[in-house]
Amino acid sequence: MKIMIITAYDGTNYCGSQIQPDKPTIEGKLNEALSELTKAEVKVTGASRTDAGVHSYGNVYTFDTFSHIPVEKFPLALNTMVPPDIRVMSAKEVRDDFHPRHGVIDKTYEYHLDDGFIEIPTKRLYSYHVRHRLDIDKMNEAAKYLIGEHDFTSFCSAKTEKESKVRTIFDLNVKTAGEQIYDNRDVIITVRGNGFLYNMVRIIAGTLMNIGTGKTDPNEIIAILEKKDRAAAGPTLPPNGLFLMEIRYDI
Amino acid sequence: MKIMIITAYDGTNYCGSQIQPDKPTIEGKLNEALSELTKAEVKVTGASRTDAGVHSYGNVYTFDTFSHIPVEKFPLALNTMVPPDIRVMSAKEVRDDFHPRHGVIDKTYEYHLDDGFIEIPTKRLYSYHVRHRLDIDKMNEAAKYLIGEHDFTSFCSAKTEKESKVRTIFDLNVKTAGEQIYDNRDVIITVRGNGFLYNMVRIIAGTLMNIGTGKTDPNEIIAILEKKDRAAAGPTLPPNGLFLMEIRYDI
Repeated sequence: MKIMIITAYDGTNYCGSQIQPDKPTIEGKLNEALSELTKAEVKVTGASRTDAGVHSYGNVYTFDTFSHIPVEKFPLALNTMVPPDIRVMSAKEVRDDFHPRHGVIDKTYEYHLDDGFIEIPTKRLYSYHVRHRLDIDKMNEAAKYLIGEHDFTSFCSAKTEKESKVRTIFDLNVKTAGEQIYDNRDVIITVRGNGFLYNMVRIIAGTLMNIGTGKTDPNEIIAILEKKDRAAAGPTLPPNGLFLMEIRYDI
Repeated sequence: MKIMIITAYDGTNYCGSQIQPDKPTIEGKLNEALSELTKAEVKVTGASRTDAGVHSYGNVYTFDTFSHIPVEKFPLALNTMVPPDIRVMSAKEVRDDFHPRHGVIDKTYEYHLDDGFIEIPTKRLYSYHVRHRLDIDKMNEAAKYLIGEHDFTSFCSAKTEKESKVRTIFDLNVKTAGEQIYDNRDVIITVRGNGFLYNMVRIIAGTLMNIGTGKTDPNEIIAILEKKDRAAAGPTLPPNGLFLMEIRYDI
């Protein structure tokens, strides 16, 4: 039987999601807990590799098991075995040929910025601090140019080896959330697309940040896309502001 | 010259605000940084003692100094010296006879609950998880009975030695904030009063939580107040959901 689990985690204390020998990883913790629970060696297959420090509300893993534990019991049982910064939110049986990196309709990410003169300490692990007041309208104006099918070479790590850099962004918007405290706001960039290149969301966030601070004009984003050159876009923002929110499948 | 600073901090890694030998405390970190900055021994006086794990957006400290550093330079200078989980948000000169525990108009606290079947990991350090769906309307109905001047003996730690347990609550309300993810919501209890007894906010939060889950009826809060007995009220919720938001002075 193949089971799909949806996992939320706080990436602060992990060296990323993908398993690495002798380092704390999300996959490592899930494999340990599942092997203990099912009394057999389990190796999960993940939908998205998240970097060290990146958080998740909805990363998807699958595994095969002969266990007779009812599938609906897996979340609560696993949650007694994994550390409190990892939670299995749900579990369900899937077809044996289901693969979490295939049949993806869309993935949604959020990038959180804290824009205020001085950083709010309780937000530091879950957002990136920008001392500058961000112009949300300009950021949204620029965001519109990225929606649709484009070659995102300028918005992916130069290390990326994937041949095609063409991806489709369905939605990209910037909003503030929660109450303003001091002059700090939670500025949330939400992006939904059919797939993302390495560092793509963090580079989009860095480029929109530069538009919000006035360093870049909104319409310059057209030229940045056309250049197909990583150096044309803004900085790769740090992992702690990034959240993988949801992955939807055509199943 | 006497200077007042407003401090925000993440209480997770501290043994409370009040100085203790050989333990990490907010006062200890502020004293060290101020002594280094002003080249003289500084001991701050705090407005509110916050317990280990309690967070702050606005705790107030004062200190005396002969330093010639302009007062407006203190926040950025101190923030290079204290750890990133403490930030000095502002500084201003006050009268020499100002004391941060006197002349208080009101203090505002928030208590954050995460109500969903499974806890969201990235909220675990800043809210208390309740597996039950909370009835916000009933919590607000009960909250109304606590507004005004009352003897809050039932809502303070039995260890409290203060003679008068009479305090005035000006505002107390419960709301949800942010987007719902899974079935989890951020439920925020906000309370503003002229002063609070030891553990009072955490006991009010525990009592309102019991009303939200249906364990206690909203109008039972009247009898709980009248009993003047700590055992009549709900549990003292853990420190990690508590935030000292603001202290206002009559100056």
